[in-house]
Amino acid sequence: MGLSVTILGANSAIPTATRYPTAQVVDINQSRYLVDCGEGAQMQLRRNKIKLQRIKAIFISHLHGDHYFGLIGLINTMHMLGRNIPLDIFGPPELLDVLNLQLDLADTKLSYPWTFHPLDFGESKLIYDDDGVEVHTIPLDHGIPCNGFLFKEKKRKRKLIRERIGELNIPLEQIPKIKDGADFVDEKGEVYPNSALTTPPKRSYSYAYCSDTQYNERILPIIDRVDLLYHEATFLEDRKERAKHTKHSTAKDAATIAKKAQVGSLIIGHYSARYFDFQDHLDEAKEVFEHTYLAREGMTFDVPYKNKK
Amino acid sequence: MGLSVTILGANSAIPTATRYPTAQVVDINQSRYLVDCGEGAQMQLRRNKIKLQRIKAIFISHLHGDHYFGLIGLINTMHMLGRNIPLDIFGPPELLDVLNLQLDLADTKLSYPWTFHPLDFGESKLIYDDDGVEVHTIPLDHGIPCNGFLFKEKKRKRKLIRERIGELNIPLEQIPKIKDGADFVDEKGEVYPNSALTTPPKRSYSYAYCSDTQYNERILPIIDRVDLLYHEATFLEDRKERAKHTKHSTAKDAATIAKKAQVGSLIIGHYSARYFDFQDHLDEAKEVFEHTYLAREGMTFDVPYKNKK
Repeated sequence: MGLSVTILGANSAIPTATRYPTAQVVDINQSRYLVDCGEGAQMQLRRNKIKLQRIKAIFISHLHGDHYFGLIGLINTMHMLGRNIPLDIFGPPELLDVLNLQLDLADTKLSYPWTFHPLDFGESKLIYDDDGVEVHTIPLDHGIPCNGFLFKEKKRKRKLIRERIGELNIPLEQIPKIKDGADFVDEKGEVYPNSALTTPPKRSYSYAYCSDTQYNERILPIIDRVDLLYHEATFLEDRKERAKHTKHSTAKDAATIAKKAQVGSLIIGHYSARYFDFQDHLDEAKEVFEHTYLAREGMTFDVPYKNKK
Repeated sequence: MGLSVTILGANSAIPTATRYPTAQVVDINQSRYLVDCGEGAQMQLRRNKIKLQRIKAIFISHLHGDHYFGLIGLINTMHMLGRNIPLDIFGPPELLDVLNLQLDLADTKLSYPWTFHPLDFGESKLIYDDDGVEVHTIPLDHGIPCNGFLFKEKKRKRKLIRERIGELNIPLEQIPKIKDGADFVDEKGEVYPNSALTTPPKRSYSYAYCSDTQYNERILPIIDRVDLLYHEATFLEDRKERAKHTKHSTAKDAATIAKKAQVGSLIIGHYSARYFDFQDHLDEAKEVFEHTYLAREGMTFDVPYKNKK
């Protein structure tokens, strides 16, 4: 149970033999969501032993290829493996044209129901909602329309005090209501307040994903105090001009956003292919925000933070 | 010098953690051509230390995704790395729409001149021609329009007998003509026939690539006596019905074509993801055609055949 993020690709636009373009799996209470889908994401899912048919929804931030060129291959493979459960895909409206064109050319009708949800880019919106999570957009500033995504775990239910349930012989059908906060009234009409039957739930967690963006304080209210923030850090400060020109961030930019938003922990990634080592990124960010970690292919970050590999 | 084929992907439609969809590099006298470009081909080029900027032309057989989903990423990476030498791309006409749509959405104008050459599918045609090679299409039979490609190394020049050149004091500017077969006339008007100055060139080699096809004897005259044939062998004979239904070949089909065309050696590949070992493919093919070899990611086949790894 809980929230975790697995990095499938941590590189920016140019992949190498071992570094993949952006893709991440967000796991919230065992429901799985894919965030961006660079080329090779489906192979990376397999390498990391993540069942691709368990992905419920896919969120694409923008239409630079390093964030979506792997999508058509992934949805095609889901089809060839006989998927029948629905898939929701969120992204810029034109993404639907790209998918439909390629499916039509191969005469492919996907084996499963899929729904494409075109996104707009003006302000933060609630775009997805299921039993366990809400997803909101985070409008970013990157030259072409680009959204980040905020995952907010839904408020968990209160926890039953098992002994009290037994003592009072509470009927099974009442249990869900009690978890939702109801009091219990027994046959004699005696009222047992909810606080005597349950304890408060663990707090719910949140994750903000900011794919490609230049330094942008307008996102601060949206990502305020999230438990975990991923923020791109394509460059170091010594390439500040290059960062501005390409509308990307430096490690210091990412850390400054993390600090101002008072987030729990920061993951940085989307490294330019010019870097072969990321210690300087880490050092630069940590000077501003201590709880910074480097994204690397195959790593899983848990909330609260515990680095598995 | 010579002809070689490096396998970047030997799997059929569904990639795994280690098995990639179809892509091959054909190297003829140090000019490089890419044949098909499944997802991940650019990473496979890097893993195999093949400089992607040295690829002169790309040939796409058909628009099933496992043969071209890696193309947009590759041409994009060539651009981001600052390529300026021209690139020729050959494929079904609609491929241009797929590329243009994705380039336009990212506002990308490629840094190098590129020419798209739409192919048709009715009969074998000469489609490409440079100093060292001719490429012809091989119309295949696969449900959607599909071409294989025949690479014919051009006739090499005659080899000079160095001693004779020295003895006769032949001026440098005459050498190319003599390599082309001209006689030499010295200052006194004495004629030395070309056969006294040169020896015949080594023979030229040929490679035929048959990507996806059901058993089809109409290709026999086109691939007649090629030195090396790649022919797909998605299934084994016990799945003959499945092969027919999906318009693919069995290992026996591939070997029968190799035998009837009297080719030098046969490479089989495009294995269905249902197989985890290909010894049965090899055994089935070898019963019909002894000089059969299994394609695996990272292998290079030289002509005449010598398996490097």
